[in-house]
Amino acid sequence: MKWTLAARAEKMNPSAIREILKVTERPNVISLAGGLPSPKTFPVSAFAQACADVLANDGQAALQYAASEGYAPLRRAVADMLPWDVNPDQVLITTGSQQGLDLIAKVLLDPGSKVLVETPTYLGALQAFSPMEPQAVSVASDGEGVLPDDLTAKAEGGRFVYLLPNFQNPTGRTMSEARRAAVSAAAQAAGLPIVEDNPYGDLWFDEAPPLPLTARNPEGCIYLGSFSKILAPGLRLGFLVAPKAIYPKLLQAKQAVDLHTPIFTQRMVSAVMKDGFLDRHVPTIRALYKQQRDAMVAALQREFGVDGQPLDAERPLGGQRGHAVPSVGARRPGLDVEFNVPKGGMFLWLRMPEGIDSTALLAQAVERNVAFVPGAPFYAGEPDTRTLRLSFVTATVEQIDTAIAALAATVREALAHRTAAQITQQLAAA
Amino acid sequence: MKWTLAARAEKMNPSAIREILKVTERPNVISLAGGLPSPKTFPVSAFAQACADVLANDGQAALQYAASEGYAPLRRAVADMLPWDVNPDQVLITTGSQQGLDLIAKVLLDPGSKVLVETPTYLGALQAFSPMEPQAVSVASDGEGVLPDDLTAKAEGGRFVYLLPNFQNPTGRTMSEARRAAVSAAAQAAGLPIVEDNPYGDLWFDEAPPLPLTARNPEGCIYLGSFSKILAPGLRLGFLVAPKAIYPKLLQAKQAVDLHTPIFTQRMVSAVMKDGFLDRHVPTIRALYKQQRDAMVAALQREFGVDGQPLDAERPLGGQRGHAVPSVGARRPGLDVEFNVPKGGMFLWLRMPEGIDSTALLAQAVERNVAFVPGAPFYAGEPDTRTLRLSFVTATVEQIDTAIAALAATVREALAHRTAAQITQQLAAA
Repeated sequence: MKWTLAARAEKMNPSAIREILKVTERPNVISLAGGLPSPKTFPVSAFAQACADVLANDGQAALQYAASEGYAPLRRAVADMLPWDVNPDQVLITTGSQQGLDLIAKVLLDPGSKVLVETPTYLGALQAFSPMEPQAVSVASDGEGVLPDDLTAKAEGGRFVYLLPNFQNPTGRTMSEARRAAVSAAAQAAGLPIVEDNPYGDLWFDEAPPLPLTARNPEGCIYLGSFSKILAPGLRLGFLVAPKAIYPKLLQAKQAVDLHTPIFTQRMVSAVMKDGFLDRHVPTIRALYKQQRDAMVAALQREFGVDGQPLDAERPLGGQRGHAVPSVGARRPGLDVEFNVPKGGMFLWLRMPEGIDSTALLAQAVERNVAFVPGAPFYAGEPDTRTLRLSFVTATVEQIDTAIAALAATVREALAHRTAAQITQQLAAA
Repeated sequence: MKWTLAARAEKMNPSAIREILKVTERPNVISLAGGLPSPKTFPVSAFAQACADVLANDGQAALQYAASEGYAPLRRAVADMLPWDVNPDQVLITTGSQQGLDLIAKVLLDPGSKVLVETPTYLGALQAFSPMEPQAVSVASDGEGVLPDDLTAKAEGGRFVYLLPNFQNPTGRTMSEARRAAVSAAAQAAGLPIVEDNPYGDLWFDEAPPLPLTARNPEGCIYLGSFSKILAPGLRLGFLVAPKAIYPKLLQAKQAVDLHTPIFTQRMVSAVMKDGFLDRHVPTIRALYKQQRDAMVAALQREFGVDGQPLDAERPLGGQRGHAVPSVGARRPGLDVEFNVPKGGMFLWLRMPEGIDSTALLAQAVERNVAFVPGAPFYAGEPDTRTLRLSFVTATVEQIDTAIAALAATVREALAHRTAAQITQQLAAA
């Protein structure tokens, strides 16, 4: 049988990382790789009550086909919880915010269209855009996100710039108030729409991040949000807010894709959110993740012998200047390792010493029962192959301590091998 | 702000029918338009028990991110319930079978690719394929589906043929055993893959339909199934079965679209299906829908004064020869109306008298508080504007009687106006 693939499908390849990460499902491996929220934070009993209530009160409607736009009370709740004036008519409920990226790509990207992204950027966005065959252009970025001047320089002909301003995946960095103002102004001056992705914004540790970019210019932005990190990812419930100029097209694309997001899960979440549940629940997630972030930073300081690093626009690490996190225990000798101290979210970004390729390192780390995600796939342009992403939310504090020690041992071993190899080479050349 | 749309999005237009059908949400309108399963058939209490069990036993896992392929026990259950030898590894759980159509389009259709469809075909498939900008080619069809000779004539260069062999949407027609054998042979001879959509196959009234086309040639077919019609559509749960040659690409497309289908609803359905629940439940749906089909056929006979029609390949109505459904009550004078008597599913297809355009008729029908879907949008090629689709599953028997009487009155009035207009014209011309 002759299956002729579409050109876009010919380019799809099984993710090398995905294959490596399958190994991490071995029972003894502590994974700092996946972006899995801590299951401890899932409000299981509240969901049980919500399911029972929804089925008892509205069982038939909760199981019937429903509107493509989403469940009206949930759209109102989304509009109400956002920190700018949002009309519920502009809210589209999506099957996870990942689906929002797919819809946006369908509506805004032709083959060869230029789409601007951060350096590095969320891998899932690159994957969602890719079937529409755009040209992804990496905008120079530092620890606060994209640099406005480079955005201006590259904006010409761009369909949109994709930004994740809060506790970015993968770097954990956050765009400052001043940077937001500058980026918003640069985008408006260039007539460049912004797609703002904000799955982590509620997971701040000490203070809420600045207002979203969309709040500054709602007509020029599409905003993506998610219930995955504040309630549970397994429901696949997200939303987008789009201006009137573009909403009807996104709605039509949504209808063609899955008719509507499951109405049962929409009603579940709507029921759970009643009576200010999130106001009580989200602070418990923040407290847990902050504790785990602190544990990871302390372990990194101890095991790698270095503090969280200041930023460097020329050689952007992508984090904030080190917090006053107490160093715990005796430090090992310092290595040429950099890492940031994220102010929220789920991820921390490291740069390994000169000569270490983090993709090669992963196989060795898995031998020591620790896993991470190499940084290279997050770059639309030339990757920094020394970088890697750690999640501090899935593993416990004890697991984090064990895993970071194992990671440091892996790096020290790799460096020792490298030195030995260099000596051998030098001897051979002598 | 300059929003530049993708070419595919420029072509998306709000569905005229969707706009008209919004009117049908008025309280007094009896809608025979939407394809909404009867909510009476939703096993609300079984779902309530399943939710409670899933959250009590596996709450955290049921709310966490999950595999893109789908929940393993559900994939096994799907493989087990299909009437040919299916490896669970070839099953991909989708967010409704509509999503399967989107994934297939992404993986198999380039702009301009030829995709073959029935005459008429499922509108939602045309909508799902459309963003990939294929050329949809209508294959001549009669009351048993596509004609093998025309399929052969048009197969050259086609990426696949999309077929809905059981109780088709919109016509209600079913492909006979002989036609399946001929179509399968024609597709294989031409090296043309088949995408087989089977959302209604379990809803047979007197006897199960013949084996799926996929069972005859699994390597040459992608099969789409759904839980929407046998359990509940509001969960948006469907699946596809694809050969090894194409499965990995569909999986990658799935991952980019929404990471995975909600694991909570997958586990709900898996829990509900335990212990042979469907074997007890589905017969109750069949019995209800058969009773409602009978009521609609009887009402059509009475109000339009005609029987269900035999088929005519030259002028394909798309139904089976009239069943022995008892005529109820005195018949009104016969009109030049044709309709089929479907052997299962949810829909019945009518052809109005000469001179009636069913799209124009809809506005008049809504004035009499009855709604249907005009047939024209279901045609990829030249539409038969006299056709329309009626659903017999959402309305009760009493509502069906009232609605068909109102529909017949609308048609008689339209014909009378037409005759009056013709006489006026003739007088004016005289």
